[in-house]
Amino acid sequence: MIGLLHHHVMNTLATHIRALTFDIFGTVVDWRSSIIGEGQALQQRLGAAGGAPADWPALADAWRAGYFSTMAQVTRGELAPNNVDGLHRLILDRLLPRFGLDQLPEAEREHLNRAWHRLAPWPDSVAGLSRLRQRYLLSTLSNGNMALLVNMAKHAGLPWDCVLSAELFGRFKPDPEVYRGAARLLDLAPGQVMMVAAHPFDLVAAQRAGLKTAYIPRPAERGPGGGMEPVGDAVFDIVAPDLGALATQLGIA
Amino acid sequence: MIGLLHHHVMNTLATHIRALTFDIFGTVVDWRSSIIGEGQALQQRLGAAGGAPADWPALADAWRAGYFSTMAQVTRGELAPNNVDGLHRLILDRLLPRFGLDQLPEAEREHLNRAWHRLAPWPDSVAGLSRLRQRYLLSTLSNGNMALLVNMAKHAGLPWDCVLSAELFGRFKPDPEVYRGAARLLDLAPGQVMMVAAHPFDLVAAQRAGLKTAYIPRPAERGPGGGMEPVGDAVFDIVAPDLGALATQLGIA
Repeated sequence: MIGLLHHHVMNTLATHIRALTFDIFGTVVDWRSSIIGEGQALQQRLGAAGGAPADWPALADAWRAGYFSTMAQVTRGELAPNNVDGLHRLILDRLLPRFGLDQLPEAEREHLNRAWHRLAPWPDSVAGLSRLRQRYLLSTLSNGNMALLVNMAKHAGLPWDCVLSAELFGRFKPDPEVYRGAARLLDLAPGQVMMVAAHPFDLVAAQRAGLKTAYIPRPAERGPGGGMEPVGDAVFDIVAPDLGALATQLGIA
Repeated sequence: MIGLLHHHVMNTLATHIRALTFDIFGTVVDWRSSIIGEGQALQQRLGAAGGAPADWPALADAWRAGYFSTMAQVTRGELAPNNVDGLHRLILDRLLPRFGLDQLPEAEREHLNRAWHRLAPWPDSVAGLSRLRQRYLLSTLSNGNMALLVNMAKHAGLPWDCVLSAELFGRFKPDPEVYRGAARLLDLAPGQVMMVAAHPFDLVAAQRAGLKTAYIPRPAERGPGGGMEPVGDAVFDIVAPDLGALATQLGIA
Protein backbone atom coordinates (compact mmCIF):
# COMPACT_ATOMS: atom_id res chain seq x y z
CA MET A 1 0.00 0.00 0.00
CA ILE A 2 2.74 2.39 0.97
CA GLY A 3 4.69 1.02 -1.99
CA LEU A 4 1.81 1.81 -4.36
CA LEU A 5 1.30 5.26 -2.94
CA HIS A 6 5.01 5.97 -3.22
CA HIS A 7 4.94 4.73 -6.81
CA HIS A 8 2.08 7.09 -7.67
CA VAL A 9 3.70 10.12 -6.03
CA MET A 10 6.98 9.35 -7.80
CA ASN A 11 5.26 8.99 -11.19
CA THR A 12 3.55 12.35 -10.80
CA LEU A 13 6.81 13.98 -9.76
CA ALA A 14 8.78 12.33 -12.57
CA THR A 15 6.40 13.58 -15.25
CA HIS A 16 5.98 17.06 -13.78
CA ILE A 17 9.65 18.01 -13.62
CA ARG A 18 11.37 19.04 -16.83
CA ALA A 19 14.88 19.99 -15.78
CA LEU A 20 17.40 18.84 -13.21
CA THR A 21 19.92 21.37 -11.91
CA PHE A 22 23.04 19.99 -10.26
CA ASP A 23 25.29 21.19 -7.54
CA ILE A 24 28.80 20.26 -8.66
CA PHE A 25 31.55 20.23 -5.98
CA GLY A 26 30.93 17.09 -3.94
CA THR A 27 27.69 16.18 -5.72
CA VAL A 28 28.99 15.39 -9.22
CA VAL A 29 32.77 15.60 -8.76
CA ASP A 30 35.09 14.41 -6.00
CA TRP A 31 36.97 17.63 -5.27
CA ARG A 32 38.98 16.30 -2.33
CA SER A 33 40.68 13.30 -3.97
CA SER A 34 41.22 15.34 -7.13
CA ILE A 35 42.93 18.23 -5.34
CA ILE A 36 45.08 15.88 -3.25
CA GLY A 37 46.10 14.00 -6.42
CA GLU A 38 46.91 17.20 -8.33
CA GLY A 39 48.98 18.54 -5.43
CA GLN A 40 50.98 15.36 -5.01
CA ALA A 41 51.57 15.10 -8.77
CA LEU A 42 52.73 18.72 -8.84
CA GLN A 43 55.32 18.15 -6.12
CA GLN A 44 56.51 14.94 -7.75
CA ARG A 45 56.90 16.79 -11.05
CA LEU A 46 58.89 19.62 -9.44
CA GLY A 47 61.19 17.19 -7.62
CA ALA A 48 63.60 18.81 -5.15
CA ALA A 49 62.49 22.28 -6.32
CA GLY A 50 59.00 21.45 -5.06
CA GLY A 51 60.12 21.25 -1.42
CA ALA A 52 59.20 18.65 1.22
CA PRO A 53 55.95 16.75 0.66
CA ALA A 54 53.09 18.91 1.91
CA ASP A 55 50.07 17.63 3.80
CA TRP A 56 47.80 17.76 0.75
CA PRO A 57 44.69 16.33 2.45
CA ALA A 58 44.90 19.12 5.05
CA LEU A 59 45.57 21.70 2.33
CA ALA A 60 42.58 20.49 0.30
CA ASP A 61 40.33 20.72 3.37
CA ALA A 62 41.58 24.20 4.28
CA TRP A 63 41.16 25.35 0.68
CA ARG A 64 37.59 24.12 0.63
CA ALA A 65 36.82 25.71 4.01
CA GLY A 66 38.27 28.99 2.76
CA TYR A 67 35.91 28.82 -0.23
CA PHE A 68 32.86 28.95 2.02
CA SER A 69 34.24 31.63 4.30
CA THR A 70 35.35 33.94 1.46
CA MET A 71 32.00 33.55 -0.34
CA ALA A 72 30.28 34.58 2.89
CA GLN A 73 32.62 37.58 3.11
CA VAL A 74 31.74 38.63 -0.44
CA THR A 75 28.03 38.25 0.34
CA ARG A 76 28.39 40.40 3.46
CA GLY A 77 30.32 43.00 1.49
CA GLU A 78 33.55 42.44 3.49
CA LEU A 79 35.46 41.27 0.42
CA ALA A 80 35.32 42.67 -3.12
CA PRO A 81 33.08 40.77 -5.54
CA ASN A 82 35.06 37.96 -7.14
CA ASN A 83 34.30 34.74 -8.96
CA VAL A 84 35.25 31.34 -7.59
CA ASP A 85 38.48 31.14 -9.63
CA GLY A 86 39.49 34.43 -8.02
CA LEU A 87 38.48 33.32 -4.52
CA HIS A 88 40.29 30.00 -4.92
CA ARG A 89 43.46 31.83 -5.88
CA LEU A 90 43.17 34.25 -2.97
CA ILE A 91 42.83 31.38 -0.52
CA LEU A 92 45.61 29.37 -2.13
CA ASP A 93 48.08 32.24 -1.85
CA ARG A 94 47.22 32.54 1.85
CA LEU A 95 47.58 28.80 2.48
CA LEU A 96 50.80 27.97 0.64
CA PRO A 97 53.21 29.40 3.28
CA ARG A 98 51.45 27.45 6.01
CA PHE A 99 52.15 24.23 4.06
CA GLY A 100 55.80 24.99 3.31
CA LEU A 101 55.03 25.89 -0.32
CA ASP A 102 55.67 29.64 -0.30
CA GLN A 103 58.32 29.20 -3.03
CA LEU A 104 55.82 27.79 -5.54
CA PRO A 105 56.31 29.74 -8.82
CA GLU A 106 53.47 31.78 -10.29
CA ALA A 107 52.83 29.45 -13.24
CA GLU A 108 52.53 26.47 -10.85
CA ARG A 109 50.18 28.37 -8.58
CA GLU A 110 47.94 29.19 -11.48
CA HIS A 111 48.06 25.60 -12.74
CA LEU A 112 47.20 24.34 -9.26
CA ASN A 113 44.38 26.85 -8.94
CA ARG A 114 42.94 25.53 -12.18
CA ALA A 115 42.88 22.01 -10.68
CA TRP A 116 39.29 22.94 -9.77
CA HIS A 117 38.59 22.90 -13.53
CA ARG A 118 39.90 19.33 -13.73
CA LEU A 119 38.09 17.62 -10.87
CA ALA A 120 37.22 13.97 -11.44
CA PRO A 121 33.57 12.85 -11.42
CA TRP A 122 32.35 10.30 -8.88
CA PRO A 123 32.31 6.83 -10.50
CA ASP A 124 28.50 6.95 -11.02
CA SER A 125 28.28 10.52 -12.37
CA VAL A 126 28.80 10.26 -16.14
CA ALA A 127 26.69 7.13 -16.59
CA GLY A 128 23.97 8.45 -14.25
CA LEU A 129 23.79 11.82 -16.02
CA SER A 130 23.63 10.12 -19.41
CA ARG A 131 20.57 8.16 -18.29
CA LEU A 132 18.90 11.20 -16.72
CA ARG A 133 19.54 13.22 -19.87
CA GLN A 134 17.35 10.87 -21.90
CA ARG A 135 14.31 12.42 -20.26
CA TYR A 136 15.33 15.66 -18.58
CA LEU A 137 17.13 18.82 -19.44
CA LEU A 138 20.33 18.75 -17.37
CA SER A 139 22.10 21.87 -16.15
CA THR A 140 24.79 22.72 -13.66
CA LEU A 141 23.79 25.16 -10.91
CA SER A 142 26.97 25.78 -8.96
CA ASN A 143 28.68 28.71 -7.32
CA GLY A 144 31.66 27.80 -9.51
CA ASN A 145 32.07 30.36 -12.29
CA MET A 146 31.06 29.65 -15.88
CA ALA A 147 34.60 29.09 -17.22
CA LEU A 148 35.35 26.65 -14.41
CA LEU A 149 32.15 24.67 -15.05
CA VAL A 150 32.52 24.65 -18.84
CA ASN A 151 36.17 23.57 -18.68
CA MET A 152 35.33 20.90 -16.12
CA ALA A 153 32.50 19.53 -18.27
CA LYS A 154 34.81 19.28 -21.27
CA HIS A 155 37.60 17.69 -19.22
CA ALA A 156 35.41 15.17 -17.42
CA GLY A 157 32.91 14.49 -20.21
CA LEU A 158 29.89 15.64 -18.21
CA PRO A 159 26.92 15.63 -20.60
CA TRP A 160 25.13 18.89 -19.70
CA ASP A 161 22.46 20.43 -21.88
CA CYS A 162 23.32 23.75 -20.37
CA VAL A 163 25.88 25.24 -18.00
CA LEU A 164 24.42 27.70 -15.48
CA SER A 165 26.33 29.31 -12.65
CA ALA A 166 25.48 31.58 -9.73
CA GLU A 167 27.91 33.96 -11.50
CA LEU A 168 25.13 34.78 -13.99
CA PHE A 169 23.04 36.23 -11.17
CA GLY A 170 25.79 38.12 -9.36
CA ARG A 171 25.29 36.28 -6.08
CA PHE A 172 26.03 32.89 -4.54
CA LYS A 173 23.83 30.01 -3.48
CA PRO A 174 21.93 29.74 -1.17
CA ASP A 175 20.54 33.13 -2.34
CA PRO A 176 17.01 32.33 -3.63
CA GLU A 177 17.57 34.43 -6.76
CA VAL A 178 20.08 31.86 -8.03
CA TYR A 179 17.48 29.05 -8.03
CA ARG A 180 14.66 31.23 -9.36
CA GLY A 181 16.97 32.75 -11.97
CA ALA A 182 17.90 29.31 -13.29
CA ALA A 183 14.23 28.35 -13.66
CA ARG A 184 13.52 31.67 -15.38
CA LEU A 185 16.38 31.25 -17.90
CA LEU A 186 15.05 27.78 -18.72
CA ASP A 187 11.52 29.24 -19.07
CA LEU A 188 10.22 26.82 -16.45
CA ALA A 189 8.22 27.27 -13.28
CA PRO A 190 10.39 26.65 -10.18
CA GLY A 191 8.32 23.52 -9.47
CA GLN A 192 9.31 22.05 -12.84
CA VAL A 193 12.96 22.12 -11.81
CA MET A 194 14.61 19.67 -9.42
CA MET A 195 17.78 20.67 -7.60
CA VAL A 196 20.17 17.75 -7.09
CA ALA A 197 22.78 18.17 -4.37
CA ALA A 198 24.82 16.43 -1.69
CA HIS A 199 24.30 19.31 0.74
CA PRO A 200 21.09 19.91 2.70
CA PHE A 201 21.68 23.71 2.98
CA ASP A 202 21.58 23.95 -0.83
CA LEU A 203 18.44 21.84 -1.12
CA VAL A 204 16.59 23.62 1.66
CA ALA A 205 17.24 26.94 -0.09
CA ALA A 206 16.13 25.48 -3.45
CA GLN A 207 12.98 24.17 -1.79
CA ARG A 208 12.19 27.60 -0.33
CA ALA A 209 12.58 29.03 -3.84
CA GLY A 210 9.95 26.54 -5.07
CA LEU A 211 12.15 23.87 -6.66
CA LYS A 212 11.82 20.13 -6.18
CA THR A 213 14.78 18.47 -4.49
CA ALA A 214 16.88 15.31 -4.73
CA TYR A 215 19.40 14.60 -1.98
CA ILE A 216 22.44 12.53 -2.96
CA PRO A 217 24.43 11.88 0.22
CA ARG A 218 28.14 11.63 -0.56
CA PRO A 219 29.67 10.25 2.65
CA ALA A 220 33.16 10.15 1.06
CA GLU A 221 33.15 13.84 0.10
CA ARG A 222 35.17 15.10 3.05
CA GLY A 223 37.39 12.03 3.30
CA PRO A 224 37.78 9.52 6.16
CA GLY A 225 36.10 10.89 9.29
CA GLY A 226 35.23 14.10 7.48
CA GLY A 227 31.58 13.86 8.42
CA MET A 228 28.55 15.14 6.58
CA GLU A 229 26.27 18.14 6.91
CA PRO A 230 23.33 17.09 9.12
CA VAL A 231 19.96 16.80 7.36
CA GLY A 232 18.06 17.95 10.46
CA ASP A 233 14.30 17.92 9.93
CA ALA A 234 14.54 18.73 6.20
CA VAL A 235 12.48 16.49 3.91
CA PHE A 236 13.40 16.15 0.25
CA ASP A 237 11.38 14.75 -2.66
CA ILE A 238 13.97 12.08 -3.41
CA VAL A 239 16.92 10.62 -1.57
CA ALA A 240 19.22 8.45 -3.68
CA PRO A 241 22.72 7.09 -2.99
CA ASP A 242 24.07 8.11 -6.40
CA LEU A 243 23.02 9.52 -9.79
CA GLY A 244 22.30 6.08 -11.27
CA ALA A 245 19.91 5.36 -8.40
CA LEU A 246 18.30 8.77 -8.98
CA ALA A 247 17.61 7.79 -12.61
CA THR A 248 16.14 4.49 -11.46
CA GLN A 249 13.90 6.19 -8.88
CA LEU A 250 12.66 8.54 -11.60
CA GLY A 251 11.72 5.48 -13.67
CA ILE A 252 14.43 5.77 -16.31
CA ALA A 253 15.68 2.37 -17.50
CA MET B 1 54.40 30.70 -51.71
CA ILE B 2 51.04 32.24 -51.00
CA GLY B 3 49.89 28.75 -50.09
CA LEU B 4 52.71 28.37 -47.56
CA LEU B 5 52.12 31.79 -46.08
CA HIS B 6 48.42 31.06 -45.79
CA HIS B 7 49.22 27.75 -44.13
CA HIS B 8 51.41 29.48 -41.54
CA VAL B 9 48.85 32.19 -40.77
CA MET B 10 46.16 29.55 -40.44
CA ASN B 11 48.28 27.41 -38.11
CA THR B 12 48.96 30.37 -35.83
CA LEU B 13 45.28 31.28 -35.79
CA ALA B 14 44.18 27.69 -35.21
CA THR B 15 46.42 27.27 -32.16
CA HIS B 16 45.70 30.71 -30.70
CA ILE B 17 41.92 30.45 -30.56
CA ARG B 18 40.36 28.42 -27.77
CA ALA B 19 36.65 28.83 -28.24
CA LEU B 20 34.25 29.18 -31.17
CA THR B 21 31.00 31.08 -30.59
CA PHE B 22 28.22 30.48 -33.07
CA ASP B 23 25.43 32.56 -34.41
CA ILE B 24 22.45 30.20 -34.68
CA PHE B 25 19.53 31.30 -36.91
CA GLY B 26 20.74 30.84 -40.47
CA THR B 27 24.29 29.87 -39.48
CA VAL B 28 23.66 26.55 -37.72
CA VAL B 29 19.95 25.98 -38.34
CA ASP B 30 17.73 26.49 -41.38
CA TRP B 31 14.97 28.62 -39.85
CA ARG B 32 13.08 29.25 -43.09
CA SER B 33 12.45 25.64 -44.22
CA SER B 34 11.74 24.63 -40.63
CA ILE B 35 9.12 27.32 -40.04
CA ILE B 36 7.46 26.63 -43.41
CA GLY B 37 7.38 22.90 -42.62
CA GLU B 38 5.96 23.46 -39.12
CA GLY B 39 3.26 25.79 -40.46
CA GLN B 40 2.18 23.45 -43.21
CA ALA B 41 2.13 20.49 -40.81
CA LEU B 42 0.05 22.51 -38.36
CA GLN B 43 -2.59 23.33 -40.97
CA GLN B 44 -2.66 19.74 -42.21
CA ARG B 45 -3.15 18.54 -38.63
CA LEU B 46 -6.00 21.00 -38.00
CA GLY B 47 -7.76 20.03 -41.26
CA ALA B 48 -10.82 22.15 -42.14
CA ALA B 49 -10.55 23.94 -38.75
CA GLY B 50 -7.14 25.24 -39.82
CA GLY B 51 -8.58 27.34 -42.65
CA ALA B 52 -7.30 27.73 -46.22
CA PRO B 53 -3.60 26.97 -46.78
CA ALA B 54 -1.59 30.06 -45.83
CA ASP B 55 1.42 31.36 -47.73
CA TRP B 56 3.92 29.93 -45.23
CA PRO B 57 7.07 31.03 -47.07
CA ALA B 58 5.81 34.64 -46.96
CA LEU B 59 4.78 34.26 -43.33
CA ALA B 60 8.21 32.85 -42.40
CA ASP B 61 9.94 35.78 -44.14
CA ALA B 62 7.70 38.37 -42.49
CA TRP B 63 8.18 36.72 -39.10
CA ARG B 64 11.96 36.86 -39.52
CA ALA B 65 11.87 40.47 -40.69
CA GLY B 66 9.74 41.37 -37.66
CA TYR B 67 12.37 39.80 -35.42
CA PHE B 68 14.99 42.29 -36.56
CA SER B 69 12.68 45.29 -36.44
CA THR B 70 11.31 44.52 -32.95
CA MET B 71 14.83 43.91 -31.57
CA ALA B 72 15.82 47.31 -32.93
CA GLN B 73 12.73 48.82 -31.25
CA VAL B 74 13.70 47.26 -27.92
CA THR B 75 17.26 48.58 -28.32
CA ARG B 76 15.95 52.09 -29.04
CA GLY B 77 13.62 51.88 -26.04
CA GLU B 78 10.47 52.03 -28.20
CA LEU B 79 9.32 48.58 -27.10
CA ALA B 80 9.47 47.07 -23.60
CA PRO B 81 12.43 44.73 -22.99
CA ASN B 82 11.48 41.23 -24.06
CA ASN B 83 13.30 38.05 -24.94
CA VAL B 84 13.16 36.50 -28.39
CA ASP B 85 10.37 34.07 -27.47
CA GLY B 86 8.32 37.08 -26.41
CA LEU B 87 9.19 39.06 -29.53
CA HIS B 88 8.41 36.10 -31.80
CA ARG B 89 4.99 35.77 -30.19
CA LEU B 90 4.26 39.48 -30.50
CA ILE B 91 5.09 39.40 -34.21
CA LEU B 92 3.17 36.18 -34.81
CA ASP B 93 -0.01 37.59 -33.27
CA ARG B 94 0.29 40.61 -35.57
CA LEU B 95 0.90 38.49 -38.68
CA LEU B 96 -1.73 35.78 -38.33
CA PRO B 97 -4.73 37.90 -39.45
CA ARG B 98 -2.83 39.01 -42.55
CA PHE B 99 -2.39 35.34 -43.51
CA GLY B 100 -6.00 34.30 -42.86
CA LEU B 101 -5.08 32.58 -39.59
CA ASP B 102 -6.73 34.88 -37.06
CA GLN B 103 -8.81 31.94 -35.73
CA LEU B 104 -5.75 29.94 -34.67
CA PRO B 105 -6.38 28.81 -31.05
CA GLU B 106 -4.05 29.90 -28.26
CA ALA B 107 -2.46 26.47 -27.75
CA GLU B 108 -1.64 26.26 -31.49
CA ARG B 109 -0.18 29.76 -31.49
CA GLU B 110 2.08 28.87 -28.61
CA HIS B 111 3.09 25.60 -30.26
CA LEU B 112 3.85 27.44 -33.50
CA ASN B 113 5.83 30.09 -31.65
CA ARG B 114 7.93 27.34 -30.13
CA ALA B 115 8.77 26.09 -33.64
CA TRP B 116 11.85 28.33 -33.21
CA HIS B 117 12.96 25.86 -30.50
CA ARG B 118 12.69 23.01 -33.02
CA LEU B 119 14.56 24.39 -36.03
CA ALA B 120 16.46 21.82 -38.09
CA PRO B 121 20.24 22.08 -38.48
CA TRP B 122 21.80 22.53 -41.90
CA PRO B 123 22.97 19.11 -43.20
CA ASP B 124 26.62 19.86 -42.31
CA SER B 125 26.03 21.32 -38.84
CA VAL B 126 26.03 18.38 -36.43
CA ALA B 127 28.97 16.57 -38.06
CA GLY B 128 30.93 19.81 -38.46
CA LEU B 129 30.38 20.85 -34.84
CA SER B 130 31.38 17.40 -33.62
CA ARG B 131 34.73 17.72 -35.42
CA LEU B 132 35.30 21.29 -34.22
CA ARG B 133 34.51 20.24 -30.66
CA GLN B 134 37.47 17.86 -30.62
CA ARG B 135 39.77 20.86 -30.33
CA TYR B 136 37.72 23.90 -29.37
CA LEU B 137 35.23 24.89 -26.75
CA LEU B 138 31.95 25.41 -28.63
CA SER B 139 29.29 27.84 -27.50
CA THR B 140 26.20 29.42 -28.96
CA LEU B 141 26.16 33.22 -29.08
CA SER B 142 22.74 34.13 -30.38
CA ASN B 143 20.12 36.73 -29.68
CA GLY B 144 17.76 33.81 -29.11
CA ASN B 145 17.00 33.42 -25.42
CA MET B 146 18.58 30.72 -23.27
CA ALA B 147 15.50 28.45 -23.12
CA LEU B 148 15.13 28.62 -26.90
CA LEU B 149 18.80 27.73 -27.46
CA VAL B 150 18.87 24.96 -24.86
CA ASN B 151 15.67 23.36 -26.14
CA MET B 152 16.91 23.63 -29.74
CA ALA B 153 20.23 21.98 -28.85
CA LYS B 154 18.43 19.09 -27.18
CA HIS B 155 15.97 18.72 -30.05
CA ALA B 156 18.54 18.92 -32.84
CA GLY B 157 21.43 17.20 -31.05
CA LEU B 158 23.77 20.18 -31.32
CA PRO B 159 26.90 19.31 -29.30
CA TRP B 160 27.61 22.57 -27.44
CA ASP B 161 29.99 22.78 -24.52
CA CYS B 162 28.09 25.81 -23.35
CA VAL B 163 24.96 27.74 -24.26
CA LEU B 164 25.39 31.52 -24.15
CA SER B 165 22.81 34.06 -25.24
CA ALA B 166 22.66 37.82 -25.60
CA GLU B 167 19.90 37.48 -22.98
CA LEU B 168 22.61 37.04 -20.32
CA PHE B 169 23.89 40.53 -21.06
CA GLY B 170 20.53 42.31 -21.31
CA ARG B 171 21.15 43.53 -24.86
CA PHE B 172 21.19 42.17 -28.39
CA LYS B 173 23.96 41.60 -30.93
CA PRO B 174 25.58 43.57 -32.52
CA ASP B 175 26.13 45.36 -29.16
CA PRO B 176 29.85 44.88 -28.39
CA GLU B 177 29.10 43.93 -24.80
CA VAL B 178 27.55 40.66 -25.98
CA TYR B 179 30.80 39.51 -27.66
CA ARG B 180 33.05 40.78 -24.87
CA GLY B 181 30.74 39.34 -22.24
CA ALA B 182 30.93 35.89 -23.83
CA ALA B 183 34.75 35.98 -23.82
CA ARG B 184 34.71 37.17 -20.19
CA LEU B 185 32.39 34.36 -19.04
CA LEU B 186 34.69 31.85 -20.74
CA ASP B 187 37.71 33.52 -19.07
CA LEU B 188 39.32 34.12 -22.46
CA ALA B 189 40.73 37.19 -24.15
CA PRO B 190 38.47 38.36 -27.01
CA GLY B 191 41.21 37.35 -29.46
CA GLN B 192 41.05 33.75 -28.24
CA VAL B 193 37.43 33.53 -29.33
CA MET B 194 36.26 33.14 -32.93
CA MET B 195 32.74 34.21 -33.87
CA VAL B 196 31.20 32.00 -36.55
CA ALA B 197 28.27 33.47 -38.48
CA ALA B 198 26.50 33.64 -41.82
CA HIS B 199 25.94 37.39 -41.45
CA PRO B 200 28.61 40.03 -42.04
CA PHE B 201 26.97 42.56 -39.63
CA ASP B 202 27.43 40.08 -36.79
CA LEU B 203 31.06 39.33 -37.70
CA VAL B 204 32.01 42.98 -38.18
CA ALA B 205 30.70 43.75 -34.70
CA ALA B 206 32.53 40.75 -33.24
CA GLN B 207 35.71 41.90 -34.96
CA ARG B 208 35.35 45.40 -33.49
CA ALA B 209 35.00 43.78 -30.06
CA GLY B 210 38.33 41.99 -30.65
CA LEU B 211 37.14 38.53 -31.64
CA LYS B 212 38.41 36.47 -34.56
CA THR B 213 35.84 35.76 -37.26
CA ALA B 214 34.73 32.95 -39.56
CA TYR B 215 32.19 33.71 -42.26
CA ILE B 216 29.98 30.83 -43.39
CA PRO B 217 27.88 32.09 -46.32
CA ARG B 218 24.50 30.37 -46.36
CA PRO B 219 23.03 31.28 -49.76
CA ALA B 220 19.93 29.15 -49.11
CA GLU B 221 19.03 30.90 -45.84
CA ARG B 222 16.42 33.26 -47.27
CA GLY B 223 15.10 30.79 -49.86
CA PRO B 224 15.07 31.04 -53.66
CA GLY B 225 15.96 34.58 -54.71
CA GLY B 226 16.11 35.68 -51.08
CA GLY B 227 19.55 37.18 -51.51
CA MET B 228 22.32 37.56 -48.96
CA GLU B 229 23.63 40.38 -46.84
CA PRO B 230 26.47 42.04 -48.78
CA VAL B 231 29.97 41.55 -47.37
CA GLY B 232 31.12 44.99 -48.52
CA ASP B 233 34.76 45.62 -47.73
CA ALA B 234 34.76 43.48 -44.59
CA VAL B 235 37.61 40.96 -44.30
CA PHE B 236 37.24 37.92 -42.07
CA ASP B 237 39.89 35.51 -40.78
CA ILE B 238 38.24 32.53 -42.40
CA VAL B 239 35.60 32.05 -45.07
CA ALA B 240 34.23 28.50 -45.37
CA PRO B 241 31.19 27.14 -47.21
CA ASP B 242 30.02 25.05 -44.25
CA LEU B 243 31.03 23.89 -40.76
CA GLY B 244 32.83 20.79 -42.04
CA ALA B 245 34.98 22.97 -44.29
CA LEU B 246 35.65 25.25 -41.32
CA ALA B 247 36.99 22.26 -39.36
CA THR B 248 39.18 21.29 -42.32
CA GLN B 249 40.55 24.82 -42.67
CA LEU B 250 41.41 24.80 -38.98
CA GLY B 251 43.37 21.60 -39.55
CA ILE B 252 41.00 19.19 -37.80
CA ALA B 253 40.86 15.80 -39.50
